[in-house]
Amino acid sequence: MRTGQFEAREFAERRARVKAAMSKAGFDLLVVCDPANMDYLTGYKGWSFYVPQAVLVHAAEDKPIWIGRGQDAGAARITTDLPDAGIVPYPDDYVQNRRKHPMNFVADYIRGRGWQRAAIGVEADGYYFSMRAGDALRTDLPDARLRDCDHLVNWVRIVKSPAEIAHMREAARLVEAAMQTAIDRIASGVRQCDAVADIYHAQVAGTPEFGGDYTAICPLLPTGEGTGTPHLTWSDAPFKRGEATIIELAGSRKGYHCPMARTVHLGQPPQRLADTAKVVVEGLHAALGAVRPGATCAQVEAAWRRVIARHGIVKDSRIGYSIGIGYPPDWGEHTASLRPGDDTVLQPNMTFHCIPGIWQDGWGIEISAAFVVTDRGADRFSNFPDELVVKT
Amino acid sequence: MRTGQFEAREFAERRARVKAAMSKAGFDLLVVCDPANMDYLTGYKGWSFYVPQAVLVHAAEDKPIWIGRGQDAGAARITTDLPDAGIVPYPDDYVQNRRKHPMNFVADYIRGRGWQRAAIGVEADGYYFSMRAGDALRTDLPDARLRDCDHLVNWVRIVKSPAEIAHMREAARLVEAAMQTAIDRIASGVRQCDAVADIYHAQVAGTPEFGGDYTAICPLLPTGEGTGTPHLTWSDAPFKRGEATIIELAGSRKGYHCPMARTVHLGQPPQRLADTAKVVVEGLHAALGAVRPGATCAQVEAAWRRVIARHGIVKDSRIGYSIGIGYPPDWGEHTASLRPGDDTVLQPNMTFHCIPGIWQDGWGIEISAAFVVTDRGADRFSNFPDELVVKT
Repeated sequence: MRTGQFEAREFAERRARVKAAMSKAGFDLLVVCDPANMDYLTGYKGWSFYVPQAVLVHAAEDKPIWIGRGQDAGAARITTDLPDAGIVPYPDDYVQNRRKHPMNFVADYIRGRGWQRAAIGVEADGYYFSMRAGDALRTDLPDARLRDCDHLVNWVRIVKSPAEIAHMREAARLVEAAMQTAIDRIASGVRQCDAVADIYHAQVAGTPEFGGDYTAICPLLPTGEGTGTPHLTWSDAPFKRGEATIIELAGSRKGYHCPMARTVHLGQPPQRLADTAKVVVEGLHAALGAVRPGATCAQVEAAWRRVIARHGIVKDSRIGYSIGIGYPPDWGEHTASLRPGDDTVLQPNMTFHCIPGIWQDGWGIEISAAFVVTDRGADRFSNFPDELVVKT
Repeated sequence: MRTGQFEAREFAERRARVKAAMSKAGFDLLVVCDPANMDYLTGYKGWSFYVPQAVLVHAAEDKPIWIGRGQDAGAARITTDLPDAGIVPYPDDYVQNRRKHPMNFVADYIRGRGWQRAAIGVEADGYYFSMRAGDALRTDLPDARLRDCDHLVNWVRIVKSPAEIAHMREAARLVEAAMQTAIDRIASGVRQCDAVADIYHAQVAGTPEFGGDYTAICPLLPTGEGTGTPHLTWSDAPFKRGEATIIELAGSRKGYHCPMARTVHLGQPPQRLADTAKVVVEGLHAALGAVRPGATCAQVEAAWRRVIARHGIVKDSRIGYSIGIGYPPDWGEHTASLRPGDDTVLQPNMTFHCIPGIWQDGWGIEISAAFVVTDRGADRFSNFPDELVVKT
């Protein structure tokens, strides 16, 4: 066992589910370039996704085929269960070369296998599959029926196995420790970078039983007027009394993420922030209360929306998304969103991050919950108070 | 001054240089989606590149235009000098929606400005510009002359300003501290995750004068047989006596990176590793010695190659690349590479990471140097011993 993470049966089941979805969608071959999907299908790990690479899944093949940069083939041998014939390195001069592209090599491989007339699915809006990558495949495989697979593997990933949920429960321990560190360290006069240094330490050192992996998104830390927008990061300026800071971060265990967001105010908070915090928590709990197998994502969001409407708050962005394996730049799974119009039906062992953030002009608040759908409703991964943290 | 980082003159010069390159290449309009290029042109910062976003540069416009997700418009207002009319938010339901794509919105904006027949350059192989993004622009702008700009902004970035080099010199202080922490902490029986937790802490807490930003690549840490391949990351297993560990990491100051790689062996190293280390250092110094304005990237690599050939070592991958601003997943600039056939002529204030890694079957070594090209040759950013570190 070379992957050191899941049993062979787990990978066999994943591959069977993907092939069933391929059959249903009419694909003979998938070209998978999203690193989270490559990992899901093979166990492949390594920060090599900054160059083009792919896992091919062919309906008639027992195992997928990894194609990547020569120097990364060793990582495929170490982290996957693929046989040597299923690990196909491309020469280094394909890297960042104006005259040829790694997807030209992938197309050559596909032709070499006689698959050039296949119905080929690509992840047309996946990360690390550029316009040029798509054009290279289209140009080099003119007889293929090539089309977007619409995140086919992501949609298979949406229902988690017990082994995956076990990883996410461990990730929850990591994010609890990191968030507690953030709350403890954020104080007037402390440099933001010093608090974040300790947050990273907690994320990675983890517990005596297990450590943490890198997270797909770095700790987000809007502070002061920056809390009106969610994706700012830290500086080396000090935190200030009278200002709020939003912390959004995750723990990652073997690439599986459990995210969490909280908001800290240094000193007595403005009334509008304290009031909004109460509404957000009430709305969050209403959304979690609407979670059950058979409900839709839109129905979960509607439960939130009813609460905030009663308090005169309007929010036009989604309040959550499916989570699982994450690679930079995102721990979201790019499938179901908790928002109006999303008719995805909840099933047991789907996992979500419900993060109903409110961002106004120069102020905002985030209090979130990650959960797994069970027959009894939403089972939260983390045990952490749902409140605006006030440090006086 | 809202960007808090560079003077207005710096941005004016960058924009003028990009427009000159556009004029030469025959573009009226650039659609820039690489977050490093967006930052370079506007100062925009924020971990929002997990959704499509763009900076538009039009030849006839004084300032670029930022287009992004509604909730990130606040980050554009805080981090850039763009006027409100130049910050264009798209509605949240464009996010991860099968039926519409943010690039449909960008195309609508382009048509709204009357630019639908323009010669439009896109970063066809840039990060975060997917096949679907490209197809959306092509479909919605059928009368445009749309083509790959071949990393036009990256090529403008290749020569750094004094202010940029000052940031990289600060980043060098960060990477020195982080690498020293790695060397100090790697020891038999120590969990890899505990060493990496301290590495992250050093990268971010920085010095009393300034802190560090997130780096575009997480600390890479192949250990044991993993040193045969460069991009593996840590686990929570302990380091073992008798094994080597490769550390590749960077410091980042305001997004500007200074990378470094070193190799540590716990206990007396095998002779082949000790011997190879000497060759690598000799070859690295030969490459650095070949750096001067007017030399080509290929000539620098040839100086390395002559040394290793004399010792019977073959290496088929590039030994370095241009560096500067970095966003995940890469701190490389995707322009010049130190490799055969790259005829890029070195100029003063170009900056590179020379990393002549050797990866064999189950073992390897990396000892690297980041430098700026000056009239006197390569000026190294970091002051750190060039050697295989042996901890007995």
